[in-house]
Order: sequence, then C-alpha cells, then structure tokens
Amino acid sequence: MTAYDPDNIFAKLLRGEIPNHTLYEDDRTLAFLDIMPIVDGHSLVIPKKPARNIFDVEPDELAYLAQIAQKVSLAACKAFGADGHTLRLHSEVSGGQEVPHVHFHLLPMKTGVPVRPRAMADHAVLAQHAAKIRALL
Amino acid sequence: MTAYDPDNIFAKLLRGEIPNHTLYEDDRTLAFLDIMPIVDGHSLVIPKKPARNIFDVEPDELAYLAQIAQKVSLAACKAFGADGHTLRLHSEVSGGQEVPHVHFHLLPMKTGVPVRPRAMADHAVLAQHAAKIRALL
Repeated sequence: MTAYDPDNIFAKLLRGEIPNHTLYEDDRTLAFLDIMPIVDGHSLVIPKKPARNIFDVEPDELAYLAQIAQKVSLAACKAFGADGHTLRLHSEVSGGQEVPHVHFHLLPMKTGVPVRPRAMADHAVLAQHAAKIRALL
Repeated sequence: MTAYDPDNIFAKLLRGEIPNHTLYEDDRTLAFLDIMPIVDGHSLVIPKKPARNIFDVEPDELAYLAQIAQKVSLAACKAFGADGHTLRLHSEVSGGQEVPHVHFHLLPMKTGVPVRPRAMADHAVLAQHAAKIRALL
C-alpha cells in the first residue's frame, strides 16, 4: 500500500491552497466541480480525512461519502436536466485514478449526449454551474 | 422516476429463480460474479431491498452497499493480484445501466491488463474465481 501523499492537489484544496467551485461542505466531506468536466455538472466528492483510495479509506468514511455523493448527484441531475447518472471511484493508476486522494466522480448523463474529452473549463461557466447545483442542495 | 420492475434479472436472482456465483451474502446485500466479466474477478453487489438506482435507493442502503463493495473489492483484488480498482454505479440507460436494480460494478484492475469486451464466461471458471474470492472474505 502506497502511503498517502499530503501534497496531492485535493489535500492542497482542502487546506485552501487551491481554490475550488464548492457545491457542498460539511465537517467530513467536500463536493466541488471537476475543472476538466466531461459532462456539465461533473462533480467530485472527497472526505476531509486523508485516504488514498478504496484500498485504505475507512469503511465509515466511504459509507458517508456515498451518501453525500447521492445528495450532490440528485441536485446536479436536476440542475442539468439529466435523465441518467454514472458514479465512478478509481483506485491507483491501473484503476484510472488521477489524484491520490479518494474521490467519487459524479456524472449527470443525458440521453443522446456523449461525454466530452477532458479539457479545462472556463471558470466563469463553472461558477454559474456550481451556483445552479448549490441552489438545489 | 420509473417504477421498480420486480421482474428484472437481479430481482429474480434474489428470489433464487436464477443461479449466481455468490461471493458474500448478509441480510441486506448480495455480492456475486458478473457472468460477462470484463476483468477477472468482476463482481456486482446489490441491496436486497428493491431500488432501481441512485435516484431512488435509500441513503442508508447505499451507504451500507458501499461498505460491502469495499470489503468484496479488497478480497477480489487480493485474489487476482490486482494493483488497482474501479467501482462504477450506472443509473438509467443514459448512465450506462443494464439491469434496473441498483448495483455497483467492482473491477479489480492490473497494470498493463486492459478490460475485455463483455462476453459470457465459462461457469466452471466463474465457480473457481468465486471460490478464490470467498476464501479471502
């Protein structure tokens, strides 16, 4: 098991060293928009307690994270008129993980609208999208 | 919200009308091998309580399902020497859902080993794989 890297970008984001488009926050979790969204409303939810991925996250933390993921997902689907949803949890590089702090990807999906390639989004647009989702949470 | 279909194949499987390669079972959940695995150890975990997907599953049921998903995933990764993992939850057709009973896909991933196309597996092989995972649970 690789050790948790306290300098990963989500750890920096949790320390406020990197800004984010926050959707939801409580004492245990933070949900925010992915800055390289593959669909509108592409969100991430992470625990505040350090954990790398499915291999080391505490079961109770994962369970709570799943509940917050659902809450954020329902709001994001409503905000963007999505009739479907995909949730993903990637662990380690072979599992598709990009940032080594456990996170769910939350993807509101619409019939007939394919995912886009990952590309940096405009921050003004992300700010509008975050406001739309927050209004429904 | 589409209503739950009590004749979906996982409902039939829960009623014992369709066999499965069981990995884990308790009063609330059932984990079993996907019969069209895209990697060795491709598993599914479902709640026994009827729910279609992320849009209607009770938060407590989803949280418990996530904990069982982790437990099964760690055993499956150990059983197959996987150094990574991908978990997916597809909701509705646009979100990639195939069977309308909420389920996590659990994919043990190995560096350099891509996923295979979906194809029916040999049941004798699945029985061996299930035994390998069960031995670690």
